[in-house]
Amino acid sequence: MSTGRTLTRQLAERIAGSEPLKDTRAVEAARAGVLDWLASTLAARDDAGAAGIIAALGIGAGGTGNGRSSVPGRPERLAALDAALVNGYLSHALDYDDVHESVRGHPSAVILSALLAEAEERDAAGSEFLAAYIVGVEAMCRLGLALGPKPYEAGWHSTAILGALGAAAACARLIGLDAATTAQALGLAATQAGGLRVHFGTQVKPLHAGLAARSGLLAARLAEAGIAGAEEPLEGPLGFFAALGGGAAKPEKMTEGWGEPWQIAEPGLWFKRYPCCSASHHAADAALAIRAARRAADITAIDRVTVTFPPGGDAALIVREPKTGVEGRFSVEYVIAAALADGELGIGTFADEPIRPDLLALAAKVERRYDAAVVPAPNAMPKERFTIVSVAYADGSTHTERVDCPRGAPGRPLTAEERMDKYVDAARGLSAAWQELPGKVGRLEQLTDMHVLIPNT
Amino acid sequence: MSTGRTLTRQLAERIAGSEPLKDTRAVEAARAGVLDWLASTLAARDDAGAAGIIAALGIGAGGTGNGRSSVPGRPERLAALDAALVNGYLSHALDYDDVHESVRGHPSAVILSALLAEAEERDAAGSEFLAAYIVGVEAMCRLGLALGPKPYEAGWHSTAILGALGAAAACARLIGLDAATTAQALGLAATQAGGLRVHFGTQVKPLHAGLAARSGLLAARLAEAGIAGAEEPLEGPLGFFAALGGGAAKPEKMTEGWGEPWQIAEPGLWFKRYPCCSASHHAADAALAIRAARRAADITAIDRVTVTFPPGGDAALIVREPKTGVEGRFSVEYVIAAALADGELGIGTFADEPIRPDLLALAAKVERRYDAAVVPAPNAMPKERFTIVSVAYADGSTHTERVDCPRGAPGRPLTAEERMDKYVDAARGLSAAWQELPGKVGRLEQLTDMHVLIPNT
Repeated sequence: MSTGRTLTRQLAERIAGSEPLKDTRAVEAARAGVLDWLASTLAARDDAGAAGIIAALGIGAGGTGNGRSSVPGRPERLAALDAALVNGYLSHALDYDDVHESVRGHPSAVILSALLAEAEERDAAGSEFLAAYIVGVEAMCRLGLALGPKPYEAGWHSTAILGALGAAAACARLIGLDAATTAQALGLAATQAGGLRVHFGTQVKPLHAGLAARSGLLAARLAEAGIAGAEEPLEGPLGFFAALGGGAAKPEKMTEGWGEPWQIAEPGLWFKRYPCCSASHHAADAALAIRAARRAADITAIDRVTVTFPPGGDAALIVREPKTGVEGRFSVEYVIAAALADGELGIGTFADEPIRPDLLALAAKVERRYDAAVVPAPNAMPKERFTIVSVAYADGSTHTERVDCPRGAPGRPLTAEERMDKYVDAARGLSAAWQELPGKVGRLEQLTDMHVLIPNT
Repeated sequence: MSTGRTLTRQLAERIAGSEPLKDTRAVEAARAGVLDWLASTLAARDDAGAAGIIAALGIGAGGTGNGRSSVPGRPERLAALDAALVNGYLSHALDYDDVHESVRGHPSAVILSALLAEAEERDAAGSEFLAAYIVGVEAMCRLGLALGPKPYEAGWHSTAILGALGAAAACARLIGLDAATTAQALGLAATQAGGLRVHFGTQVKPLHAGLAARSGLLAARLAEAGIAGAEEPLEGPLGFFAALGGGAAKPEKMTEGWGEPWQIAEPGLWFKRYPCCSASHHAADAALAIRAARRAADITAIDRVTVTFPPGGDAALIVREPKTGVEGRFSVEYVIAAALADGELGIGTFADEPIRPDLLALAAKVERRYDAAVVPAPNAMPKERFTIVSVAYADGSTHTERVDCPRGAPGRPLTAEERMDKYVDAARGLSAAWQELPGKVGRLEQLTDMHVLIPNT
């Protein structure tokens, strides 16, 4: 369609005109994505950073804001633009939210954070919300495929720079903008794109998700209000791809294969089972399997643990001697120790508190190794990755487990029950209305407006 | 000082600790900058884009917002973050605002837009406001010198990417953040930096100034609230300079020669005499000189006009056949025609209305030429630039004028009277309180709070 139009316009036509709700798999994946986003956000609801951000926005302590949009698990009702920012921060604060291979980052933390805020503001129906979400993920993924890995290598944070465009696409669809106006929204998002990887390992990483959510929603709103920029903001010598992609981008991938199948369903969202860095999830699965098999074993009977990666496979696991649970989120030593000792890795495992002495002692027994000779499995996630955990006991026995594709990744998806467990764990301590929320998510496309979804208390 | 600290921290120490009010020239330049910013903003007060932006922010039609910060010439009182955005847009909407060589763009549109909004919110004194402005311009200029021309060539808009940092520096100073927190504010601004040149010639260009103003203020507020990112966000392999400067940046220039002299005074701000693209100001001066010398001449007596540039010297003047005054802002043909016909280039010259038939006819007689053999003057602004306008009359006579450094540029500054005229022209039709405002700007450092400056009506 429209081969005479600019590429941005062709993308915009797909955003405005697709009918994703006809695809059962996409709708199911989207419902699962919403429940997982709620779990990730609720799990972080007491994070101190959210209060700081709300203060910076000028909403006084004890105030509840002056809008209609929720921050799940918090008392404030904020203007939609502000809610998008706080939601984005919280949903990514624990690094517990979903991941997508095509984005090399986190789509729902940005897209759903903007979309829920705007859906509440506009009294949008559940079906409109779901369609906008599927289309937003599709746009963000296809832009990720088009932009390629170069910007990440140069220091840009993929979730941030692609997120503004994904959220703009989703919000444009929700608002019901036509193709020409949607193209403007994309240009207004592209020109707000930013976010530097130098901030990884700090609060500013999740803040990026919030800033991108806000920028994307603002872009859609500005376009709706008639603010107009370049006709072709993405392609061309001065556009988004040129500035960020350093000449290596493939803009035609923005529209190639759109919705066939929908990216939200295939390759699909990776729902995290543990609130820690995804690079530690292979080791977590392996250590939990060992613990399950040796249930009776006392951890003091463990002599030594080795964890083997492909060379560079532990690059994201930057902490070797964590002092708090928060630092432990990026330490494979701590993840393995907690899995072996407690048989679970929950929200409490990664709390902002000093690490228990028994876990510190066990973590100190973990040694990292690298092996370039191991052949990764075809379904390895990410590609070429594996992790081997080997535990040596005082009685001379050893137990070894290898994981190439961790649980939750598209190749080994969580069961419906496991996804529900994640939500229940995150919503612990909240009111009965929150406990009933998964049922509402299960019939999301029938909700007359999105306020029905989020409890007031 | 502090050679053992990171470069960002050294910059932050200068932002937090300098005493710019001791420098009379800097204070005088800052007062002139404030008056010129007010003129540029007031001249654009009826711009339709501002209403669109205010609508996108969720402030309903007829509403006046729910904050304490002004948008000069408009009725709204907005939250400071929103006011920063609208102010930034309006002050740059006519391309009438100041320019600085070290920035390759517009410092005050971003810095003062954020600073006035936050000064009103915090009841800051005039002296604090002026000091923060001088320091913010210094930081933005030094960051521009450090970043170099590469990002602009790659498609980034200098005003936007440097502006967020300049505004953050100014607001951090106004708020009174210590050096460590100011360094965090700079990192939070750097990670929000964005803005693509692909939008030049559209409303999105001035919007960039507003977005940068808002981002810079938000960065300072987030740092104040304790949100913390990387210790060294600018330098290093993944930092701001690496991501945007493509390896060509010279980070040490951030602090080299800080305040010696202050950049706001030397090389100094370029105050525009006409609300049109600065690349057309040379031709404007030349055409007005010809008109002044040939006062009696009827424009129908003009046979032909040639305008000669160095090759590429007219790159910014992208419109050759404008239909409206707005388009004429970027057309040297129209600028010359209006100057020859009317003897002045005012706000009305570039209104969003169809161009008069007599001016269309004269603009059609203008021909562009290029000459690589002309040697530019040492004070040419920008460097290597000249423009020669030659008018041939029906009686066989010709009149030629050449301008290498236009009026308003640091090499040929406007007189105090000319600067006042610009304000008076911009404030025409406003209440008496607005007419008295230049007197208040003249004693700005004595004002107890900045609400005194901006009239309520």
